[in-house]
Amino acid sequence: MLKLYDLAGAEADRRFSPYCWRIKMALAHKGLAVETMPWRFTEKDAIGFSKQGRVPVLIDGERWINDSWAIADYLETAYPDRPSLFGSPSGQALARFHASWADATLQGEMIGLVVLDIWNHLDAKDKAYFRKSREERLGKTLEAAVADRDQRVIAFRDSLLPLRLTLRAQPFLGGTSPLYADYAVFGGFQWCRCISDFKLLAPDDPIYAWRQRMLDLFDGLAGQARGYAV
Amino acid sequence: MLKLYDLAGAEADRRFSPYCWRIKMALAHKGLAVETMPWRFTEKDAIGFSKQGRVPVLIDGERWINDSWAIADYLETAYPDRPSLFGSPSGQALARFHASWADATLQGEMIGLVVLDIWNHLDAKDKAYFRKSREERLGKTLEAAVADRDQRVIAFRDSLLPLRLTLRAQPFLGGTSPLYADYAVFGGFQWCRCISDFKLLAPDDPIYAWRQRMLDLFDGLAGQARGYAV
Repeated sequence: MLKLYDLAGAEADRRFSPYCWRIKMALAHKGLAVETMPWRFTEKDAIGFSKQGRVPVLIDGERWINDSWAIADYLETAYPDRPSLFGSPSGQALARFHASWADATLQGEMIGLVVLDIWNHLDAKDKAYFRKSREERLGKTLEAAVADRDQRVIAFRDSLLPLRLTLRAQPFLGGTSPLYADYAVFGGFQWCRCISDFKLLAPDDPIYAWRQRMLDLFDGLAGQARGYAV
Repeated sequence: MLKLYDLAGAEADRRFSPYCWRIKMALAHKGLAVETMPWRFTEKDAIGFSKQGRVPVLIDGERWINDSWAIADYLETAYPDRPSLFGSPSGQALARFHASWADATLQGEMIGLVVLDIWNHLDAKDKAYFRKSREERLGKTLEAAVADRDQRVIAFRDSLLPLRLTLRAQPFLGGTSPLYADYAVFGGFQWCRCISDFKLLAPDDPIYAWRQRMLDLFDGLAGQARGYAV
C-alpha cells in the first residue's frame, strides 16, 4: 500500500497541511488506498531519505516522491488507468496556474488569518520551531500577524473574486466534476478548517457551497477529518 | 468573412480592448480570418442589435455573439476541426479561472496604473463618457487614480506571482503551446501596451519573456499592432 508522511498537530489525527490535503484528495480521486503516517515539523530525520525537510512525501514501493505537484504528476503517470487528475496533458499545464495561485495568493493571505491558530494546535515539540521560523518570515509576532483579522478578512474575501466568478458558472474548477485544480485550491481551505474556527467565508458565497461539495467528496474524506465546522 | 466590432482610440488602428484582444488571438489560433471594425465607447447604436453596449461583438453570417467568453465558446463549438482553444472540455472549464483572474485581479489592478493613458488616447467623442463612468467606478479622478503608480507598480508585480511561478515552469499557460488561457491573460498586457508607455514588467521577469512570445505569435499579430514598445 502507498504511504504518506502527513503533517499532524498535537493530536495525531489533526492533519492540517494544505499540501498533504492536495495529495490525500488526489489519491482518493485515483481510488488509491494510502496509509498516512503522522509527522511533525521537527521530525526532519524521519524524512531525511528524501533529502529535504517538508511533507508530503509519498512512498510507493521502492520509490519516494516529495513536493505536492511532483507527487500529483507521478500519480498521473504511474496510474494512467485510474481517473485522470488533469483531464488531459494541456489540462495538467493549465492546472499549474490554479496550484500557483493557491500557493502564492490564497495561502499567502490565509496565513495572516490563522497562523496563531496553527501554533495553538501544534505538538509541544513543534511550537518553538514554528514560532521562530514563521515570525522571521512574517516579520512580526504570530499575535501581531492575526491582530486585525476581523478587518482583513473583508479584503481576503474580495481577493477570492476570481474563484467566486468561476464557481458561479460551474460546480467545480474542473467543470462538472472535480480535478486536481480543485484539490490544490481546496487544500488551503481545509488547512484553515482543521486548525481554526475563524469564519473565512460567508455562507452565501458560492465558494462556501463549493467547499461543502469538496468536504463531501469520497464519503466525506475531508469533512470527517478532525477540524472545525465553519 | 467573420466580422468583429473592435474598440478603437483616436486613431482607428489603435485597438486596445483587452477583451477584443482575447478574441483576435483566439481567431488567429483557429486560423479564422476576420474583418475588424473600429468602434468607440459611445457608438452604442452600432451594436444595438446585440441588446447590450460592449465589445467584442462577433458577426458570423446571420449570427452575432457578444462577451469574450461566450465568443470563445462559440468558436470552439462552431469550428471544431480547427485547433482547439482549450485542449479538452475539462481544459475549457479550467480556463475559466484564468479568464476570471484576468478580469477580476489582473485588469482590476492594471486600471489603476493606466486609466489616464487610456483617456489620453481616446477619440474626442469618447472622452467625457469615459472620464465620468470611470471616475464614478474608481471613486476618484483619473489623475488621482494613477498618481502614485510608480510606487504601486511594485505591489502590482508582486501580485503577479501565481503567473510568474507558472511561467517559470512552462513556456505558456497552456503548456508547450498557447491556449485561450494565455490569450485571456495576455489581453490585459496588450491593453496596457496599446495605450501606455508605462513599464509594467521588469525585463528579467519570466512574464516579460512570455509576453514577448505572445507578441510574436501569428506573425506578430499583437506585436505589430499600434502601441508602445515596453
